[in-house]
Order: sequence, then C-alpha cells, then structure tokens
Amino acid sequence: MTAMLESWERRCAASSALRFLDINLRGIGQVMFQNHPGTGLLFLAAITWGSYAGGMPQVAFGGLLGLVAATQTAIALRVDRAGLAAGLYGYNGVLVGLALPTFLAPSLLLWCYVLLGAAVSVVATLGTANVTKTWRVAALTFPFVLTTWLLLLAAHAFAGLDLASAGGDTEFLDPAETNPLDIAAFMAGVFKSISQVFLKGDAISALLLLAGLAVSSRAAAACALAGALLAVITAHLLGAESALISAGLLGFSPVLTAIALGSVFYQPAPRVLVYAALATVFTVVVQGAVNVAVAPLGIPALTFPFVLTSWLFLLPQQHFSPTTEAAS
Amino acid sequence: MTAMLESWERRCAASSALRFLDINLRGIGQVMFQNHPGTGLLFLAAITWGSYAGGMPQVAFGGLLGLVAATQTAIALRVDRAGLAAGLYGYNGVLVGLALPTFLAPSLLLWCYVLLGAAVSVVATLGTANVTKTWRVAALTFPFVLTTWLLLLAAHAFAGLDLASAGGDTEFLDPAETNPLDIAAFMAGVFKSISQVFLKGDAISALLLLAGLAVSSRAAAACALAGALLAVITAHLLGAESALISAGLLGFSPVLTAIALGSVFYQPAPRVLVYAALATVFTVVVQGAVNVAVAPLGIPALTFPFVLTSWLFLLPQQHFSPTTEAAS
Amino acid sequence: MTAMLESWERRCAASSALRFLDINLRGIGQVMFQNHPGTGLLFLAAITWGSYAGGMPQVAFGGLLGLVAATQTAIALRVDRAGLAAGLYGYNGVLVGLALPTFLAPSLLLWCYVLLGAAVSVVATLGTANVTKTWRVAALTFPFVLTTWLLLLAAHAFAGLDLASAGGDTEFLDPAETNPLDIAAFMAGVFKSISQVFLKGDAISALLLLAGLAVSSRAAAACALAGALLAVITAHLLGAESALISAGLLGFSPVLTAIALGSVFYQPAPRVLVYAALATVFTVVVQGAVNVAVAPLGIPALTFPFVLTSWLFLLPQQHFSPTTEAAS
Repeated sequence: MTAMLESWERRCAASSALRFLDINLRGIGQVMFQNHPGTGLLFLAAITWGSYAGGMPQVAFGGLLGLVAATQTAIALRVDRAGLAAGLYGYNGVLVGLALPTFLAPSLLLWCYVLLGAAVSVVATLGTANVTKTWRVAALTFPFVLTTWLLLLAAHAFAGLDLASAGGDTEFLDPAETNPLDIAAFMAGVFKSISQVFLKGDAISALLLLAGLAVSSRAAAACALAGALLAVITAHLLGAESALISAGLLGFSPVLTAIALGSVFYQPAPRVLVYAALATVFTVVVQGAVNVAVAPLGIPALTFPFVLTSWLFLLPQQHFSPTTEAAS
Repeated sequence: MTAMLESWERRCAASSALRFLDINLRGIGQVMFQNHPGTGLLFLAAITWGSYAGGMPQVAFGGLLGLVAATQTAIALRVDRAGLAAGLYGYNGVLVGLALPTFLAPSLLLWCYVLLGAAVSVVATLGTANVTKTWRVAALTFPFVLTTWLLLLAAHAFAGLDLASAGGDTEFLDPAETNPLDIAAFMAGVFKSISQVFLKGDAISALLLLAGLAVSSRAAAACALAGALLAVITAHLLGAESALISAGLLGFSPVLTAIALGSVFYQPAPRVLVYAALATVFTVVVQGAVNVAVAPLGIPALTFPFVLTSWLFLLPQQHFSPTTEAAS
Repeated sequence: MTAMLESWERRCAASSALRFLDINLRGIGQVMFQNHPGTGLLFLAAITWGSYAGGMPQVAFGGLLGLVAATQTAIALRVDRAGLAAGLYGYNGVLVGLALPTFLAPSLLLWCYVLLGAAVSVVATLGTANVTKTWRVAALTFPFVLTTWLLLLAAHAFAGLDLASAGGDTEFLDPAETNPLDIAAFMAGVFKSISQVFLKGDAISALLLLAGLAVSSRAAAACALAGALLAVITAHLLGAESALISAGLLGFSPVLTAIALGSVFYQPAPRVLVYAALATVFTVVVQGAVNVAVAPLGIPALTFPFVLTSWLFLLPQQHFSPTTEAAS
C-alpha cells in the first residue's frame, strides 16, 4: 500500500490534473477524517453503488458536482495550500451535493442550488474553522449542516425547489414502539449506520466504506464498527423505533463520534476509549433530541448530533494528549 | 458638502445639545453603516415619511424614543467616547423603537417596552461586540435582532402587549406560486427592498435613503441599489412568492449584505464584488430559510438573515484587505 | 459560624469521606453561587422537604444521585482541584438529577438516564467554561440546561422514557388573562420564585433556601428576596398569567440573575444595583420569550432565561469592578 501511495504521489507531483483528482479524492475521504486518496476512491465507489442501488443516481452526480465546485471555490479563494491538498475544503461540499438531491427533486435549479451550496460551504468552512480554532477544535461537518439546513429550509419558501418528491431511503418516521429484536434487522442497523454517514441505507456501501477506512487507518475502521454496534444497542435499550434503528438513521452520527474521538483527535488508550464510548452513547440521545427538534421545520437532523456531541467532548481536551496529526 | 460638515462640526463642538443631536443623527445613519449626520437627517426624513404614509405615525415616534433612550443608556454606562460619537450605540435602539410599534398595538406599556428594549440593546451591543471582536468582526444588527425577538416572543405570553393589531405593510404571507412578472411590481420590489431596512414599504422613503447614502458614500448607494436588484432577480428565479418580493420583504437583508461586504468592510475591487454578490444571493436563501424557521413562533425574521450571512462571509476575512475605517 | 466552619474544615482535611461529603454539599450550594457546606446542607433540607411535600420523593433521590455521579465523574476526569473542592463540578449534576425525575416517570432506565446526564454535565461544564472564559464569563447553569434539554427532547423519541406522567407542581399553563391581585397569591409567587430555582413550589423550601443563602452571604439572601419581589411585580405589570406567577414559574430565573449580578460577579454598589435591577426585569421578559419558544417542543425553559440574560449583562463587564472571589 505504501509503495502504491508513493508512486501515486510522484505522478500527482508531475500532473496538475492528477493533483486535482487527488485533492478531490482526499476530500471524499475527509468526510470520515481520512487524508488518503485510496480511501476516497473506495468511498466514491460506496456512494456510487448506494445511489444506483437506491434508484437515485442523481445523488451520486450531485455529490461529485458539489465536491468539484467546492474545490474550485477553495482555489479561487486562495485558501491555505496544506489544507487544500489534504481535502479539507472538499468534504463539506460533497456532503452538500449528496444531501440536496436526496431531499429535493431533480431540476436545473437544483444543480444551481448545489453549486451555490458547495461554494458557500467553503466560506462556511473558513469561517467556522476561524472561530473554533480559538479553542483548538476542528470545524467538523458543521459547515455542511449549516449550509444544507439553510438551503432545505428555504426550499419550503421557494416554488422552484420541490421537497415533495424527496425521501427515498432517508425518510424519517414517527418514533413509536419498539418491535421484537431480530438478528437480521440488528445487523442491517449496524451496517446502515455506517453507510448513512453518506446518506445511504445499503450494506454493500457500508462494506466499501469500512474497506476505505481500513486502507488509511485500521483503528478508524474498528471505531466505526464498534460505534455502530454501540449505537444500535443503545437505541434499542432506550426504546427507539425499530424501523429507524434498522435503517441506520440513529447510528450515523454516533459512528462519526466514535471515529473522531476514538481514533482521530485523541490517541487510542483505555481512558480515551471509555470517554469515546460515553460520547457515542450520548450521541444517540442527541440524535433523538435533534430529530424531535427539527421535525416541525421539515428538515432532517443531518450530522448535527455528531457535531454538537463531538464539540462538547472535544472542548475539555486538556485531559488527554491529542494525536500529532490534526484532521478535518 | 465638506464645508457644511466642517461648519456643523464646529457648532457641535461648542454646544452639548447640538452634539447630542449629532450623535443621534449618526446613530440613524449607522443602520446602514454611515457615520454622517446628513445621512442620519435624510434617513430620519425617510422614516417619518414612511410612517405617516403607511398610516402608522407612532412608528416614527417609537424610533426616536428608542434612539434617544439608547444614547442616554450608553452615556450612563460610560461607553467608549469614539464609538458613542460615531453613533454606534444608537442604531440598534432606533431599530428596536421602529420594530416594536410596527408589530405591537400602541399603549403606555408599549412605550415602556421600547424604553426597556432600547436600554437592553446597548448592553447587547457591548456584549456582542466584546464577543465578535475576538475574530475582528462587527456586531452588525444582532443586538437589535436578539432584543426585539425576545420582546416580541414574550408579548405572546403577556396580556398587556397586543400582537393582534400588528402588521400593516410588513405582514408576512404564505409562500405560494409566482405570478407573471410585471415591470411596475419589479421596480416596487427593488425600491421597497431598500426601504424595508427601516421596516417601510415605500418608494419615496427608498429614494430618501439612497440620497442619504450618497451624501456619505456613493459606493454604498450603488451597492444598495445593486443589492436590491440582485435580490429581487434571485428571489424570482427561485420561485418566491411575488407579493413578498414586490413588498421588499425578501430584499432588505440582501441590501444590507451588499452595502456591508461591497463598500464597508472590504475595499471595492473586482474580487470583492464577486464575493459580495455571492453573499447577496445567499442572503436571499437565508431570508427564505429564516422566514420558514421563525413563522411557527409568530415573530418576523428582522435583519437576522443579513447578520448570519455577513458574519459567515466576514469571518474568513484574511482573504481581502479590509478598509481602513471600521464601521458598526 | 466561622468557628464551626473552621472546625469542619479540620475534620474534612483528616477524612476523605468527610471531604467527599463537603465537596457534594458545596456543589448544592453552588446552584446559588455559594461555596459553603452549611449552605449546601440547608439547600439539601429544602430539596428534601419540597420533594416529600410535593409527593415526589424520587426527585430528591434523583438530585442526590446526579450530584454524586457528577462529583465522581469530575474526579475520574481529573479536573482542577480548586474547582472540584469548591463544588463547581456538582451544581449542574444536582440540577440534572432534580429535573429529569420531575418531568419523566420513575423507572430503572430513568436512573440510568440521570447517571448519563450527570456525567455529561461535567463534560459540558468543562467545555462551556473553556469557551466562556475567553470573555471572562462563568458557565453558569448552561451545562445543566443544555444536557437536560437534550435528554428531555430525546425522551419524546424513546418509548423507554415516559413524559406522560411528568408535571406535578411544575406544570406549564397557557398564558391568559391576569386575575385580580390578592396578597396571599402575591406572597406565594415571591417565595415560590425562590424555591423554583430547585424546581419546587413550596414556601417552606424557600425559607430554608433563604436561610442557606444568609449563612454564606446576607447580600445574596437580600438579592434573592428583592429579585423575587421585582420579578413578581414586573410579571403582573406585563399582564402575565396569574397562575404562572403565583407558582413562581416566572420568577426563578430573575432570582438567579439578581443574586448573580447584585452580589456575586459585581461588588454591591448603587450603580451595580440599578444594572442588576434592569437585568432582573429583563429576565422576566426573557422567561416569557423562552416559554413561548420551547412550548412547541414539549420541554420546559429551565434556567435558560437566567443564563442568557446574565451572559448578556456580564459580557460588557469592563464597566464595574468585579468582586475578588470568582464564583461558579
């Protein structure tokens, strides 16, 4: 793997087209905090598969459009070279581009909306990072959440953007009674919790994402799987609606919390893992809370539960030694 | 003009009553970032005309009461002299004083409410500026928005303050289909977008405001007009309700964004104008989003879409050279 | 009193069990900013009496469980010794532990929820303090509000936690017309405004709380009583619903604001008292506003009106000389 990566790096250094491709692949990888083009490639495969399998190929197109638009905006805004090369200005754009066609019907105006959202996501990334670095905390996916919430809320006010046909596999259901547990639904919940990070309810996408994580960091892959398991168990114990759990809709934020706290921002260690587990369990509660809070507004929670909980658990960061490599 | 201003300055230096008048006039001008007594005088004319023409003279009285109360509170709190002299402690007070009688029925308690709101707006201005200066960003009209939102929300809980008779030309309508475009409605939307900064839907008020801007800064006047045009076009393209657009209710926040980013906080330059145009377009989206978000609470969006978008686009400010004169 | 306190201090220094008891008692006292074990003991008596008198003994148990869990979490997270000894990591935990069984039906899961909430309240205290110290402002009870809001919102999404049987003496009523004033209801409102700081509508609890304050600071006790009086009068003048006022539900946040601004964060002086009175009056407005804003979400305002108003009035703190002893 290392030899392949070095060979790739040499080719990128020689070709600006390949460098542009490299930056964009790393941008996809940074959705799960991985600065690695191979991770990005496997994540892209997961997105593409999940979109076609779910009957919404336009979602994969939207993700790519948002990614490239965000990278171009970052270049036009002359952002710092190191952050650009690491994909730190692309991961919010790809998420904006995936989310908008998931919840809005395809139209020419939708693609303009994706371009606007991707450009604003870069401004929001610069602004958020400028604020959060005051307390040595990363922007996480807050720029994606803020931009997409505003664009989706506004869609209710604009006849040109149609929310009616939104949904598909990310529909939100009313919380109700739990159903008797069955092992197939349980495992579906675990894997779809991982794929829903990219708004996909698809087990094959989840396996591609785990493979992508393992290429860059086995600890991250382990944290993702452990976080998904812990989230599904916690959600069942709290009596969340089984259909929501099995669709992975209560687990994608906890998965991100587990990766971030367990393997990215702190060095893995027993005390850190207990702390990350507490944060992962609490993210399930926050997911329930945010679902309830945003439901009357007709918008989804997106990854805000992850952002809120991770900021809460990262802000007192003096208590553990941070890892040397800072991530998104 | 310069000779007149110098003569006025000499008279103010000799008379504390004229100095107090000067501070209050500049406070009105700072609503659109202009530190100029002539601008304030023309803005005052716009407010007075718009209030009488709209059949709500009590709104103009409220604005003056809020302005003077805020200036007196600032003096009592011993704020910095430079900020006080520039009117930076008055612009939120005048807006609180205009907004409350626009949405609440006149009564003795209403005027007490205006006095309370104006006093708190000064505390909020000091507090907000103390926080936002951490990232070298101005308080903008956030103190006005926060104070007025709290006072209007609370009015739903208090029988002494009557929301029922509120409204007039600032009524919020349900978004619906767009109507065929006609040029008179289009131009009405452009001009009323400017006058709605002071909660007035009146073209003559808009012309007085443009004249007031031009007295102090032709670039600001040009940005206001260009921002209004861009906002009305964007809103039509997105399919916003025509009645809202033509009443100027989707354009007043974008007008403020255009002035702030295009002429106040950055030096006008091609790159800056593109950036300001992007921010202006996005402010229309944020206006739609905030309208949807606050509608269930029974309060108007006020200028929060301007504040949010401008903060978002000002926070990454390292990319352009800021102007030498810092404004509100 | 001083001799008793010194003798107690000597015993605590010699016994880790007594020291643990001392930390927890000070944690209860810090709910009203008092770093004194005697205050904590009288507050504990007030909580216990109020819970039994209100027919909800499980609430007192929840408070103790939350307090001890928070203190243990703080020790496990190796927080600063001075803050721990002063009870600064316990006051949010005791409030979480009182609030959850007040609004949720007793069950095994509820006590797990209290433990989770108490642990997270310590993380939130560290994180909030890390942010607010940037502007030399205390965390106040924001960690309690944030944690409890998330846990209560989430309870709507989880069948395992039952909101139906919540309420008792903290039920929220629809605001309606004011009733003719009667002196018994007026005095009930004043005293219950003090006891509702601990979610109790009970005059004897209020007297125990006033005694607890007086043990540590007569100025704090005077501010609490004056704040309650001012809040009840203001609420009546604004036309708030009499039943809400008489139950103390519009006065508990103003009581905290009055203590904090009048006796804790500023030295008592005429200018400070005017400022604190303005803040206390405005807290009544904010209480009305937050009640309206959170009602559709099915959660109570808790002490957020106090937190918001006190932050607003503390942020411009350069204007008065702060007290030498910094509090929670």
